[in-house]
Amino acid sequence: MAQTQQVKDLAAARAKTSFPVIDLTRYIHGSDEKIARRKHLASLISNDPDVKQGLAMSLRLYQLKEEHNLTQEEMLVCMDFIDEYLPVSLHESAFIPIIYAQGSDEQAKYWAPLAEKHQIIGCYAQTELGHGSNLSQLETTATLNRDTDEWIIHSTTFTASKWWIGGLGVIATHALIQARLIIDGKDFGAHGFIVPIRSLKDHRPFPGVKVGDIGPKSYGGFAKIDNGFVRFENYPIPRENMLMRFAKVTREGLYVKPPHSKLAYGSMVLLRSHMVRGAALTLARAATIATRYTTVRRQFNVPTSRKDASNPTLETQVINYPMVQSRLFPMIAQVYAILAAGNKMKSMYESMLSELMKGDISSLAEVHAISSGLKSTCTTIAATGVEDCRKIMGGHGYSYFSGISHLWSTYVPSNTYEGDNFLLTQQSARYLLKQVKVATTDPEKVTPFSKYVIKTIDQDAFQAERCSVETVNDWLRPEIQLAAFEHRAGRLVGDLAIAAMQEGMVWSDLNQECWRLCHAHSQYVLARSAVESVANVRDQGTAKETVKVLKRLSDLFALHTIQASLGDYLEDYYVSPSQCQSLRQQIKNLQEALADDVVGLVDAFDFPDHFLNSALGSADGNAYQHLWDAAQKEAINQVEVVDGYKEYIVPILTQYGAAKL
Amino acid sequence: MAQTQQVKDLAAARAKTSFPVIDLTRYIHGSDEKIARRKHLASLISNDPDVKQGLAMSLRLYQLKEEHNLTQEEMLVCMDFIDEYLPVSLHESAFIPIIYAQGSDEQAKYWAPLAEKHQIIGCYAQTELGHGSNLSQLETTATLNRDTDEWIIHSTTFTASKWWIGGLGVIATHALIQARLIIDGKDFGAHGFIVPIRSLKDHRPFPGVKVGDIGPKSYGGFAKIDNGFVRFENYPIPRENMLMRFAKVTREGLYVKPPHSKLAYGSMVLLRSHMVRGAALTLARAATIATRYTTVRRQFNVPTSRKDASNPTLETQVINYPMVQSRLFPMIAQVYAILAAGNKMKSMYESMLSELMKGDISSLAEVHAISSGLKSTCTTIAATGVEDCRKIMGGHGYSYFSGISHLWSTYVPSNTYEGDNFLLTQQSARYLLKQVKVATTDPEKVTPFSKYVIKTIDQDAFQAERCSVETVNDWLRPEIQLAAFEHRAGRLVGDLAIAAMQEGMVWSDLNQECWRLCHAHSQYVLARSAVESVANVRDQGTAKETVKVLKRLSDLFALHTIQASLGDYLEDYYVSPSQCQSLRQQIKNLQEALADDVVGLVDAFDFPDHFLNSALGSADGNAYQHLWDAAQKEAINQVEVVDGYKEYIVPILTQYGAAKL
Repeated sequence: MAQTQQVKDLAAARAKTSFPVIDLTRYIHGSDEKIARRKHLASLISNDPDVKQGLAMSLRLYQLKEEHNLTQEEMLVCMDFIDEYLPVSLHESAFIPIIYAQGSDEQAKYWAPLAEKHQIIGCYAQTELGHGSNLSQLETTATLNRDTDEWIIHSTTFTASKWWIGGLGVIATHALIQARLIIDGKDFGAHGFIVPIRSLKDHRPFPGVKVGDIGPKSYGGFAKIDNGFVRFENYPIPRENMLMRFAKVTREGLYVKPPHSKLAYGSMVLLRSHMVRGAALTLARAATIATRYTTVRRQFNVPTSRKDASNPTLETQVINYPMVQSRLFPMIAQVYAILAAGNKMKSMYESMLSELMKGDISSLAEVHAISSGLKSTCTTIAATGVEDCRKIMGGHGYSYFSGISHLWSTYVPSNTYEGDNFLLTQQSARYLLKQVKVATTDPEKVTPFSKYVIKTIDQDAFQAERCSVETVNDWLRPEIQLAAFEHRAGRLVGDLAIAAMQEGMVWSDLNQECWRLCHAHSQYVLARSAVESVANVRDQGTAKETVKVLKRLSDLFALHTIQASLGDYLEDYYVSPSQCQSLRQQIKNLQEALADDVVGLVDAFDFPDHFLNSALGSADGNAYQHLWDAAQKEAINQVEVVDGYKEYIVPILTQYGAAKL
Repeated sequence: MAQTQQVKDLAAARAKTSFPVIDLTRYIHGSDEKIARRKHLASLISNDPDVKQGLAMSLRLYQLKEEHNLTQEEMLVCMDFIDEYLPVSLHESAFIPIIYAQGSDEQAKYWAPLAEKHQIIGCYAQTELGHGSNLSQLETTATLNRDTDEWIIHSTTFTASKWWIGGLGVIATHALIQARLIIDGKDFGAHGFIVPIRSLKDHRPFPGVKVGDIGPKSYGGFAKIDNGFVRFENYPIPRENMLMRFAKVTREGLYVKPPHSKLAYGSMVLLRSHMVRGAALTLARAATIATRYTTVRRQFNVPTSRKDASNPTLETQVINYPMVQSRLFPMIAQVYAILAAGNKMKSMYESMLSELMKGDISSLAEVHAISSGLKSTCTTIAATGVEDCRKIMGGHGYSYFSGISHLWSTYVPSNTYEGDNFLLTQQSARYLLKQVKVATTDPEKVTPFSKYVIKTIDQDAFQAERCSVETVNDWLRPEIQLAAFEHRAGRLVGDLAIAAMQEGMVWSDLNQECWRLCHAHSQYVLARSAVESVANVRDQGTAKETVKVLKRLSDLFALHTIQASLGDYLEDYYVSPSQCQSLRQQIKNLQEALADDVVGLVDAFDFPDHFLNSALGSADGNAYQHLWDAAQKEAINQVEVVDGYKEYIVPILTQYGAAKL
């Protein structure tokens, strides 16, 4: 076994143990004899564990585009409805957009048509075996060879292997590689390069390229997902294959810096903004299934305050239990709040983009910070919520036919990709800290969503702030809700500022505090977006019943979110114990008020049955029949005696002779 | 489409909607034209999605038992190491034990040897399509035919179909069916019957039995799990096939009541107690992988207070970030606390059992309440923790080779089976309410783990209770920790008692309150078990370093758990804001103190590498190498040009003609 750094790290850590490990092994497993016997038993057991489907779907998608004369945008909607990561997903969603965004006009003119007609198929290769989050320490290099006018792409170490790259394992002919640009030994950091991987003649990898599939993932359901790895051995590509919209390298080997160092953030903002809306729609899908199924599932013939008294022989609908309402209804409220924030993000992104075109980068920092924070908060809410929906549904939730399992396993990696949800919180927190500084020197320059930091400057006044709720219904006043979110985020940013100034404090030691602050801020953005969207919808003259239900959802979102972190509001006496009581009461009132509308609220999401792919959540409510029908169609149920009967079952039944009954 | 109750329920719910659904569909998806186009696009897309492996493993297991002369208990340990639900799992863990527990001595003598030599293979068929949690409303009936001295087993309705039954889809020859016992039209409720399903001659189902597989589940990884359904059409079985240890039916058709109505609870207690230890070992396994991997994973070259200064070129070990420590270390503490509670449960169960033998059922209620509560709390902690471990590991956590995905998907259903984790909380809460009543009349009869309810009787004194922490280190005093848990659970039980007495209050409307109380009580049981186990280990003369680290874990468990529900302690001023500060500080201190021991603490779990089945968590720390090696072994990497190249990739690349580069 190689003495890699990893081996050393673990050995070193183990060596620090302060106590005899065997003591605890005994504590857990019993006597030494038992431990030894257990090892022996373990040694007796040994476990040994179609890409084609994804390829077929990709081809069919392109054929549909042609047959039905779809636009590119419409084809992408179809791709969403396929509801699998196709081998060409990243080609469409990353390779092509990045060529436009980071390639020069000439490069885009050359490469984009090839890619759009999928005459070449690309992938985006950033992550390496040893580095995911930390872009600055990627180990793949692109070294300029002035003589041949080429970049030499090289995997400098074992951990430099590109890993996890969508589309690279099977289909990609080209990769957009992030590598450290090196000229004459000088390292200019990570840049993008278009790198041919497999021959267009026969799909064989080029010499110097070792490419393959990284093996099975936790997601994908029945379809295997195409995720690949690649290593380069001094592999040359033309100098012109560097993406040169911002930074450039000339024929003379001169590196030309980009005009702003953070221009590349623009595309991250776009991706993360998309993910906000994606979080809402994912949670919406799970909530649709859970709402419909718990409406038709009846269990226990006990009274609840919502039980239909007209037919006393029927059991109670599961959705009428407060424990179910208290888990499910806030999720529906979250969907609508996240949608509102997603719309807000989209318009902020668009106005930032038109400013950037004019060279104005003033809003980039806030938009980047908010999109990072919302990505973290919203994808966390959605993944957790999908799993909660499954549990709300009881046992049948674990059937593949529930439609939830596949949704969950496919969605949950979003909590890690495009910026790990925990790491991202540091960026938002750092941004808010800067706003505190701005507030002390130049308060009118504080950005729109950070205005609350101004109030923290006068600490005496700030600490005297109290929630002004007097009656249960005061909790329905948006200004009271938002003031609570502002106060809490303000307190946390103030605490962080104080901690950060302490003698000898190391910034990374504060990452728990950053995490708390970032989520507090994101929750504020969500609540404010929800409040504003209700006002907008009202101004547009929408039916008053609709405005009313959206207002209730906005209220439930705000109050449920406050309740979930009640300690934060109690800790500095901002909220009083009696306000806690009235908060809980108002949440119950809202749940009660929404109970007749939840089916309509999920119907509004407008998911086709085929897309929901759920026996339990189908629009007609005939859950048990669909579950039964789905099972009957299984191949295993088409034969009277199962496969493997003679091979395995007979030997088991007769190992000690046949039964004499 | 049949007008089933479910169809009606959903239609009725939909009819109650107070607002025009289309308003919100437009809000979410845009114009009517967009909505229509989206529907059209959805219609363009259509998705159509080996039991043998499990059978082969089952046979091999039985062969190993024979070849190595294993005891039954040792074979079950081997089954754990196989780490899949085998088709024979429930035969071993339910069918055989229930025959002993619920069958008469004669029945056990007849059936058990057949089952133990697997000449017949059984399953346990309780859950139906329409009823899981609610045993009292099962719809399958067993009606006595006095003439033929037989039970007529019948699925009275569609939803009476038995569903989810482990082993029934493929392998079972017999089923232990729960059905309502009916004599002369009188319904005696659910009882157990041994019912032949498939012929021992050719494995074909008997006439009157419709049996099959329920289709794919969310768990099982690569192995398909055997879960079946069955319906009966007036299917006769001998009267003697009713399990008659407790209730009996004579040849004359006389129903003889069991001596105590709750005797059958005993086996539930046993199962749930096992699940407590199972929760600890599952979380231990995930924590082992995460601890080892984050020890060898390095990311970002930034200072942290634990960074090794001796080699400044190395990046920081991920485990040294406080955000990671604050998620991972409390999990290790949870493992040890749950183990302690599991041991406690085991000894409580054993003494209860010997009392039951003597006809003394006095401890049954407390043991049942605690085991229900712990099952709910501990399996929730473990499932959540396993998923957190995956996220702690970043992107590679989603590889199948991480070993976490399979663990999670296999474990998470435990939150629902053997009593839904939310429903179970009602039983514990109801029990504690009864203890309040006992405390007012007969305080010395309050059961050992409920003594704290006595303090709530004098409400003035109780409300004046305050946490006595003055310094950061006061938080390390077990009596202070336990007093906090007691106070909080006491307050919640007091609040529940008041709410339950309100005019017109419906019990099921209080299930959120029950849920809060039950977890508060379980957390107290866990913290107290941890504290007591440290004392026991100390008394046994274990090395003082070991006692020290166990004490730290016990402290971290208690303080982390308090912190996670801090609002509950602040809400009635029991804990003050400054105590919150010192609590957080002490948690940081404990994490710091444990940092050198965590690898040893997970090594102590003693999981063989083969069982962990994790490239990232292997004992040697060579994570990247193992990940690479595992990928290279994949079948897809053994060929130079992938399957499907000619069939799919060429048509994609050339749909618009081949590229001219």
